[in-house]
Amino acid sequence: MTSSRILLLAGSLLANSLLTPAAQAQINPALARLATNGALLAANAQKTAPIQRIDPTFWWVGMKNPKLQLLVHGAGIGSSKVSLKYDGVTLDGVQPLENPNYLLVNLTISPAAKPGQLALEFKGKKTVRYSYELRARTTPQDPTKVQGVTTADFIYLLMPDRFANGDPKNDNIKGMKAPAVARDSMYSRHGGDLKGIADHFGYLKELGVTAIWPTPVVENDQPKASYHGYALTDFYAVDRRYGTNADYVAFVQQAHQQGLKVVHDVVLNHMGTQGYLVQDAPAKDWFHQWPAFTRSNFRDAAFNDPYVSGYDRKQFGEGWFDTTMADLNQSNPLVSTYLIQNFIWWVEYTGLDAYRVDTYTYSDRKFLMDWGKAVLDEYPKLGMFAETWVQGTQQQAYFARNVLPEIDGFKSNMPSVLDFQSQYAINEALTKDAGWTEGINKMYYTLQADWLYEDAMRNVVFLDNHDVSRFYSVIGEDFAKYKMGLAWLLTTRGIPQLYYGTEVLMKNYTNPDGKVREDFPGGWAGDKKNLFTNRTGQEAEAFNYVSKLANYRKTHPALHAGKYQHFIPNDGVYTYFRYSDAGTVMVMMNSNKDEKTVDMTRFAERLNGFSSGTEVTTGAAVADLKTVKLPGRTAWVVELQK
Amino acid sequence: MTSSRILLLAGSLLANSLLTPAAQAQINPALARLATNGALLAANAQKTAPIQRIDPTFWWVGMKNPKLQLLVHGAGIGSSKVSLKYDGVTLDGVQPLENPNYLLVNLTISPAAKPGQLALEFKGKKTVRYSYELRARTTPQDPTKVQGVTTADFIYLLMPDRFANGDPKNDNIKGMKAPAVARDSMYSRHGGDLKGIADHFGYLKELGVTAIWPTPVVENDQPKASYHGYALTDFYAVDRRYGTNADYVAFVQQAHQQGLKVVHDVVLNHMGTQGYLVQDAPAKDWFHQWPAFTRSNFRDAAFNDPYVSGYDRKQFGEGWFDTTMADLNQSNPLVSTYLIQNFIWWVEYTGLDAYRVDTYTYSDRKFLMDWGKAVLDEYPKLGMFAETWVQGTQQQAYFARNVLPEIDGFKSNMPSVLDFQSQYAINEALTKDAGWTEGINKMYYTLQADWLYEDAMRNVVFLDNHDVSRFYSVIGEDFAKYKMGLAWLLTTRGIPQLYYGTEVLMKNYTNPDGKVREDFPGGWAGDKKNLFTNRTGQEAEAFNYVSKLANYRKTHPALHAGKYQHFIPNDGVYTYFRYSDAGTVMVMMNSNKDEKTVDMTRFAERLNGFSSGTEVTTGAAVADLKTVKLPGRTAWVVELQK
Repeated sequence: MTSSRILLLAGSLLANSLLTPAAQAQINPALARLATNGALLAANAQKTAPIQRIDPTFWWVGMKNPKLQLLVHGAGIGSSKVSLKYDGVTLDGVQPLENPNYLLVNLTISPAAKPGQLALEFKGKKTVRYSYELRARTTPQDPTKVQGVTTADFIYLLMPDRFANGDPKNDNIKGMKAPAVARDSMYSRHGGDLKGIADHFGYLKELGVTAIWPTPVVENDQPKASYHGYALTDFYAVDRRYGTNADYVAFVQQAHQQGLKVVHDVVLNHMGTQGYLVQDAPAKDWFHQWPAFTRSNFRDAAFNDPYVSGYDRKQFGEGWFDTTMADLNQSNPLVSTYLIQNFIWWVEYTGLDAYRVDTYTYSDRKFLMDWGKAVLDEYPKLGMFAETWVQGTQQQAYFARNVLPEIDGFKSNMPSVLDFQSQYAINEALTKDAGWTEGINKMYYTLQADWLYEDAMRNVVFLDNHDVSRFYSVIGEDFAKYKMGLAWLLTTRGIPQLYYGTEVLMKNYTNPDGKVREDFPGGWAGDKKNLFTNRTGQEAEAFNYVSKLANYRKTHPALHAGKYQHFIPNDGVYTYFRYSDAGTVMVMMNSNKDEKTVDMTRFAERLNGFSSGTEVTTGAAVADLKTVKLPGRTAWVVELQK
Repeated sequence: MTSSRILLLAGSLLANSLLTPAAQAQINPALARLATNGALLAANAQKTAPIQRIDPTFWWVGMKNPKLQLLVHGAGIGSSKVSLKYDGVTLDGVQPLENPNYLLVNLTISPAAKPGQLALEFKGKKTVRYSYELRARTTPQDPTKVQGVTTADFIYLLMPDRFANGDPKNDNIKGMKAPAVARDSMYSRHGGDLKGIADHFGYLKELGVTAIWPTPVVENDQPKASYHGYALTDFYAVDRRYGTNADYVAFVQQAHQQGLKVVHDVVLNHMGTQGYLVQDAPAKDWFHQWPAFTRSNFRDAAFNDPYVSGYDRKQFGEGWFDTTMADLNQSNPLVSTYLIQNFIWWVEYTGLDAYRVDTYTYSDRKFLMDWGKAVLDEYPKLGMFAETWVQGTQQQAYFARNVLPEIDGFKSNMPSVLDFQSQYAINEALTKDAGWTEGINKMYYTLQADWLYEDAMRNVVFLDNHDVSRFYSVIGEDFAKYKMGLAWLLTTRGIPQLYYGTEVLMKNYTNPDGKVREDFPGGWAGDKKNLFTNRTGQEAEAFNYVSKLANYRKTHPALHAGKYQHFIPNDGVYTYFRYSDAGTVMVMMNSNKDEKTVDMTRFAERLNGFSSGTEVTTGAAVADLKTVKLPGRTAWVVELQK
């Protein structure tokens, strides 16, 4: 059963009433979703309801952009005549689409319009009325909403299906296409949910986390591998196996109350083939069409290759990510508007703090600029960082705000990117011996290229994520290297991001990627091992190391707001400083197996005025700032003292 | 004996006469050099001549920039009062320097000034007169002079000491500091010279070469390892072991007559410690001074590193290249002017076609811009390409004309760079298996980044040079790979450059670098092997392969003026096209050991309209453009036919 059919069914039941969240929790989750979406159908008792849904499912008065384009979906609705009467709202016009089951309704909502139910009338063979809700905004008044993410944050990336199962009742939702929860199956759902995350806010805070990034929480009603979340089937609904829309709103609010921000993971490039927009597409040109299934070549290089062939460029941008993911045609202005409105909707609806934008490089270039501008115009404080799994800093910077001119019509307005380049570098630093450019020297060269960014301090740095081999495995489960990596993560420039479980030494190689998406031990009732509460040995040591550094970082602004200065690595030892009026922290990384004696005189410009230091993670004194004996495979994080 | 002392001695002998080139050839080469330099001392019989020299050694009327700054060197000359009387020339003023043996004389030469001898009078304890020559320009009238280099060229890089000994008489010059010629010693001089090169113009033309780039021909009167040429001791003199200044002028002229251009290799960053400017420095601030010898860190990254320490930046820019090379302080405007004038002088004097700029990244940023602008303002057609032995395209493009904004006060005006990035790529393509980014895919990614350049077609591409291991050795002396590399060199975008001997499979690894600077077999009378004239086996095959392709390239503008389009490598096969109205050439490189069957349908946008092709190097027909069986380790260069 498609979600649109559920809506049709639900519409007649819910009629024109708004349920309280408490009431919603007591009814079928599918209906609750509708209620919290506010997608209330104007189902008069005496009429069948041809309107299956309208996207956005509701809207607000007082948005900066007064325009609103409604996508109305209903059997044969396309030929309707539309009228409305609402103070401050004007009907600019309607636009039928190729598919007669759709009609676009263009509105202008003046600043004077008040919240309320906008009565829309559709005259066709039958007359249908639809009560469209215009809400009062909440984000402008509430400082805990839309906080953005800054260098002071420490982001924790988790997969909600794999982190913790807080509510077993939502594990299996009747009517959804995936098979029942099966924890022993890599690609099945495991039952994790929003409540599971919220139940461990305390754990995350102890770790020093300040922001949570779950992989997408939106509905993925796909029969296979839906757990990853990147094949959404409804742009306006939380996946009910995680919770209702209302649960998500409450989740964000609860996180904010606990001092945790929420990063919302969004996909602009594609959607799940089971979504109603695919199953009953508004028009063929809403998706990239191919005579036969054609996969993307996954080469972002084609985006801005001066020598690109038409063939490669088309395959990159228009090829499908997977058979289960329909490639959205954002060069269609209607698709663009649909996506822009959706991502404004989520911010206003939930008060989320930041967007992580999946597969950023795959979309239409004009759309990317329009989307970024529209969302940031509405929410200047919103955080935003993009997945840029690309090769070379020049390419990564091209997709971020940068010092580059507009090239071939594209000038990125993406404030921040996931810094794959420094991830490559730290991996190499810890797995290859230092050479002129190799090993730890690659870190020097990688950061050196930061001049290409408008502000590389905004880059989100990480050791691993859900798509790559886990850090602890990559470094050969070498605990000394582990600490070096974490020390780097929490002291280098940028916004650090940790992948769930790395703090307790979870391991495995990707390919298949399910291997790096295992359940967090203790997230399920009856788990033999519970690393949320009972950590021993190196797992405890790892957690404590991260926690110590992350909490130190939180309270020492030099480590996030401070300047960064580094010295050319010498003999496999890389030394850098974070400094501001608030203090100076020196980080020394010895990538060699053996101890190195470091003559500190070349760091005089940063050491002048300081007489000693304290290694932050051990509390050990560094009495002599003239010469230092740095043990092999060690990072020292040294707070300098006068 | 320093060259300045030779000049002093010579001055009194030469008096106020100009010798004809024929006459020069009959006298001592040291004197001949003076004559052709025109550094004629105003040595009246009745006076000693305290003026040892004046740089520039002569000048021209009618230059675009009317200003001229003379650096006058002579015992105690700094306190002299200067006067002159010459129609159209005004004395703007004089400037003493820290060293009393120097005086700067600033002149303005109006457009109306005529060629002649400018009488300068220096009044000090004694009155000294100096007849300074103002010549008539020749470059504006002569289209064979200052031709520039273009993508139609094929540059041959050679080391004049190691290519061919055309004139054994100049092997050992009395008074010069190096030990006698010793061919069995890696760092001694071997006796090659300008005549040796000119004697083989026919060979080079047969090979398809259109431009010769000798490593520096200027005087390197250093006691050790002077053969490489990068430690100049006189900015205004050709090294007499190669020939006189006049010989060099004649060499350029002869090359031009043969249809060969000349690239002049220049060093801006440093000079040999035995030069008179070092031995009796005008002022301490003409060179970077250190309490103790300090070598550069050789990390160009420090030039534009946003996180650079003062320590690293200073050591990069001001550290010395070697104990024998004094690091010029180009931030001193007087040094800047001295260098700018010198490099205008060489162009006007010889009519050379292009500058190759050594160690470009090491100089002062403002100077680099001023120097480039001044030289190109005077000679807009002059070719210019810089050594940019750097890491990453973003860094290489930073030192070329690029699409980047001015960063930290620097915006390069260098038209072209030596493309180390594509050299790294072709080496990897031929030595590593193809991976997502590795092996031949690195070539794709490297060229993809060309969007950073103003015009990457101007990049000078190469397989090897005098500083790196020879190509044939790097690829494991694999002749199949050799042909792939050469096919790439002569068909990729850019201006191809070959290192002498690579066409006859000369080999060896650098470190020590003398190993890759061996004598060309046959360049010396009595050589057992003469590869100029007698090539057999693979040496012949190699030469013929290069010659065939280079001569084909010469006459097929698609390969140099044509556009470049490539397709994402597939299964280790990289395919690209050069195309223009003049035709289309397809290049297919199979980096695999085994044959690959290539479905050509994805190249339709370039193949449409063509029905067959001919492999250029073998003449073999490519009858089927739908499917191609490409042998392992093979590059096909296919001219397409309708």
